Order: sequence, then structure tokens, then C-alpha cells
Amino acid sequence: MTNQIVINDVGPRDGLQNQPKTLSIEERVSLITALVEAGLPAIEVGAFVSPKAVPAMAGTDEVFAQLPKDKGVNYSALIPNARGFETGVKLNVPLMSLVVAASSTMNEKNIRMTTAQSMSMSSDVLGMAKELNRNVQAYVATAWECPFEGIVQQDEVLKVTDGLIKAGASHIVVADTIGAAAPDAVHSLMSKLAAEFGADKLSCHFHDTRAMGVANVYAAIEAGIRQFDASIGGLGGCPFAPGATGNVATEDIVLLIEQMGFETGINMSKLLEASDLATELTGTARGGHAKAWLKQQK
Amino acid sequence: MTNQIVINDVGPRDGLQNQPKTLSIEERVSLITALVEAGLPAIEVGAFVSPKAVPAMAGTDEVFAQLPKDKGVNYSALIPNARGFETGVKLNVPLMSLVVAASSTMNEKNIRMTTAQSMSMSSDVLGMAKELNRNVQAYVATAWECPFEGIVQQDEVLKVTDGLIKAGASHIVVADTIGAAAPDAVHSLMSKLAAEFGADKLSCHFHDTRAMGVANVYAAIEAGIRQFDASIGGLGGCPFAPGATGNVATEDIVLLIEQMGFETGINMSKLLEASDLATELTGTARGGHAKAWLKQQK
Repeated sequence: MTNQIVINDVGPRDGLQNQPKTLSIEERVSLITALVEAGLPAIEVGAFVSPKAVPAMAGTDEVFAQLPKDKGVNYSALIPNARGFETGVKLNVPLMSLVVAASSTMNEKNIRMTTAQSMSMSSDVLGMAKELNRNVQAYVATAWECPFEGIVQQDEVLKVTDGLIKAGASHIVVADTIGAAAPDAVHSLMSKLAAEFGADKLSCHFHDTRAMGVANVYAAIEAGIRQFDASIGGLGGCPFAPGATGNVATEDIVLLIEQMGFETGINMSKLLEASDLATELTGTARGGHAKAWLKQQK
Repeated sequence: MTNQIVINDVGPRDGLQNQPKTLSIEERVSLITALVEAGLPAIEVGAFVSPKAVPAMAGTDEVFAQLPKDKGVNYSALIPNARGFETGVKLNVPLMSLVVAASSTMNEKNIRMTTAQSMSMSSDVLGMAKELNRNVQAYVATAWECPFEGIVQQDEVLKVTDGLIKAGASHIVVADTIGAAAPDAVHSLMSKLAAEFGADKLSCHFHDTRAMGVANVYAAIEAGIRQFDASIGGLGGCPFAPGATGNVATEDIVLLIEQMGFETGINMSKLLEASDLATELTGTARGGHAKAWLKQQK
């Protein structure tokens, strides 16, 4: 078994998209560059979405053009549909991410599709990706709880995951979109998914709304998961819980993971500089809960 | 197996002792009263220590005299030695707590005794307690890591715990005094201690310095532990890591525990009022990481 855990920093997309200030292209590139310098192996750079609907992600193509090159970083972009996929292909984006919610009401409210329609659209994109030999992964959103339906049944998550893998998704990110999961539920679901599909096909994505972000990462590690999303400085919010804290902070989970004896390849001192930059640029990134202590260790 | 988890709020002692402001007797009683009203089953009220050495705990006898009566709360006091025990006996304190560190250097720096001397002094007090039929528990401090020695060996913790139980301690609180433990180490040690001495003899006490407080409570629950210390609003600090956050916040772990399907008997709405009061009185209690979200649920 490998001793590596891979962290994908989603601050530049999930983080920036869910906080009030719109950053310039230069500012977004500077944040990503700080993350590259800290040794992040994977970074979610932006989203190919309508700039009217999501002004914070406007100009993601320009951000991609200005990224540090040849650093071995797995840069990714969120794509809502086939049009986003085409943009990603044109720009030669190494990894693209689709999203399907495990909860039907979430799909309907978020993208005005039923789960079946969303699965069908995603399958089409995954089919095109296969033909063009492109790497597309899929997020299974609201995998534990939906803001509209409440608790999501594990069978629903298994079904959606199965469909996406069969359609060709290279990887599945199981997401606690609203930060509602407790670690026992994380351990239970991720153990089942790992047994069914293999832990190496899976990542987890947690928010810290209920202060369980770090505990959920631990529970998922115990279930065999070795890839995680996190957001520098805990950047981001949650559209369904105004005032709630954002994604689990990268610095907090790097500390956890390395203390547990795994390797991340991340330089903590430079990661804290990236965290400071996130706070400086947005005014809202709170910094990881362990940041005060981490800064004393430098 | 019981579905109850017992929380002992140590904010009025461990919390107030480790933050800069000295509260009046009335303020201390008001904080404890708010915790009683929130339904806390156990509260650490104060310490019978030298008022010169620890001004924040001066007048603990007066605080005891003014506590809400007949509420079924397990009130406790920290006692450093036989003299503290005698004070507790005089005041009819229902539960007294001794502290022995698992790390020898910690005992030497903290109380100028070797571990053997500290064990011998504690055994004497526990012997007196047996004779007088009084309830005395013991903290095993620095059970995972010592600020002077680094990682503490599990065998040391097992040895000290064994000695204290044999000497008559009614209960053992295993404490991560400096907030250095990671959840995998918590699970490992608490599983061994529970197998050796029984989970019902054991509590855990965590600080949130490295943002792992909630994860550590989860790991200990998974190891069978059903009693925890926590501090209202995350009140407190850590003398060995200035600027670090304090004990794990009561509101954060009540949320975790209840979402995992256990009962605490605590009223969250009133607990948040107590958390607000802790912040108002001290100016430093940060509030649990989940507090913003919890307040929206009211």
C-alpha cells in the first residue's frame, strides 16, 4: 500500500466561487502560483461556466493560459456540460470535472434536470471524452445530505457512482456539498464505495460547516481513501448556509495527514504563505483552525 | 450498550485558568449557572490551589458555596495535593481530580516531582479518599505527547493508569494536555486502555491546538469511550503554545455526538447562550468552529 495521500486544492474554484469578492485574473493566477510553489500535486483552476451566472469564474481560459508550466501539477476545471467540455478540449485542460448530485431535488434546483437527465448528459460528455482520449472525472454531490431532501440513502450514491464509472469517469469525488456529514457516516459510505469500486477510484470533498471537516478526512482515510479535496485557508462558503465556514482547510488536513505518517509532498511553510495570500486577496479566507499553531512552528 | 455520552465542561477551571483575564466570583458562578441551565451533567468548578500561583482560581470555595443546588450535576474540583483534598472534604465537593503526567519531565517541570514521587503523593491522597469514602479521579496528563520529551510511550500511560486505578482512583481522564495527538494515535491508545481497564473507567480530554479536537473525540468514541471533557466556547489556551486555541469546544462535540446518534441531555440553544456568555466574560473564548452554523439552526 502506498504511503502517499494526494491533495487537490479547490480554493481557486470552489473557494473563490463561494465568497463575495471577484478576483482579477492576475490575483487568481498569483494564488494558484503560490499553491504550485507549496507543492500541491493537484489544483482546481476554475470553471467553464457562464460569466453572467458565475462572475468569479469569468476568464478561466485566461487563467489557464497564465499558469506555471511543467510543474507536474494536475490542473483541473469544472465543466457543467458538453460546451464546457469543448472549451476544456480546446485549451488542452488535463482534467475536467462533471457534477451529478445523488439527490434528485438538488439536481433539479441546481441545474434544472432530474438525476436521470443529469446522468444522461454526463454520460454523453464521458462518451465524447473517451473518443477524444480526455480525462474527465465526476463529482457525486450531496452524497450524505441534501439541503432539500435531508439524509441521502447510500444506495442512491452507489447507483450514481456506478453509472458514472460505467460511463467512463476516470475518478469519482464523493462530496459533502453542504458540510453536513458526520465521520461515522463518512466511514460507512466510503467503506462501501471502496469495497465496490476500489479506493483508488475515489476522492472525498468535505466542508467544515459543522466543524467535522478534519474528522471526516480521518474517517475517510480509515476507510482506505487516499485522495482529498481541500481549500487553502478554508476559503469559500456555502450557498445553502450563509455565514457558515467553507471547505476544510488545506493546511489543517496536511497537518493531520502527515502526523498520521502519510506523505503529501507539500511544504507547510510555503502553504502558510499561500494561506496568507488567500486571506489578503479575499478578506474572507479564515485560515485553517491550526494556522496559529502552525505559524509558531516555522 | 448505553446510548449516553457524558460531557464534563471544564471551561470554568481549565478554560478560565488558561486565559489572561481573572473573573470575579460572581462571573464564575454565572458561567457555571449557564452551563447547569444548558443541562451539562458534569462541570469542573475550580481548583484548590495557591491563589498566588493561580489567581484565576482564587475563591473556589466561595464559588462552590454559590452553585445552583439539587440539579444533579457532578461538580468537581482540581486538587494538587493532600491539602487540596482536605479543602474538598471540608466543602463536601462531590468529585475531586488529581493530575499525574505520563511523562517524567512534565511532572518535574510542572510540580517539581519525579513521576514516582507524584504517584506516591497521589496514592496517599487516594488512600485517604478511600478511608473517608470520597470520590477522587485522576488525570493522566501528556498521555500522547510531552512538550519536553516528545512522543510518550503507550506503556508509560498504561503503567501510570494501572497504578492510579490500583491506588483507588474512581475514574481516569486521559489527557492530551498540549493538543498534540492525532486521531489514529488516540484510537490506538484508548483501545488498549479500554481493553485493559474497561471503557467505563475512562474519559478523554482534548485540546484543539492542531485542529484535531473533534477528530480525536470521534476516534475515542470509536474506541468505546463514552465520557469527555470539553470547554464551553473553546475557552482556554495552552501555556506551552501561546496563541494556540484552547480545549475542544463543548458545542462542537455535542453536535458531533448527537449527530452520531448518542444522547448528551444538553440543550443546544442554551449551550450557545453559555458560549456567548463565556466570550462576553473573557473576551477570548473563540466559540466552537460550528457556532456560526449552530446559531442559524435556532
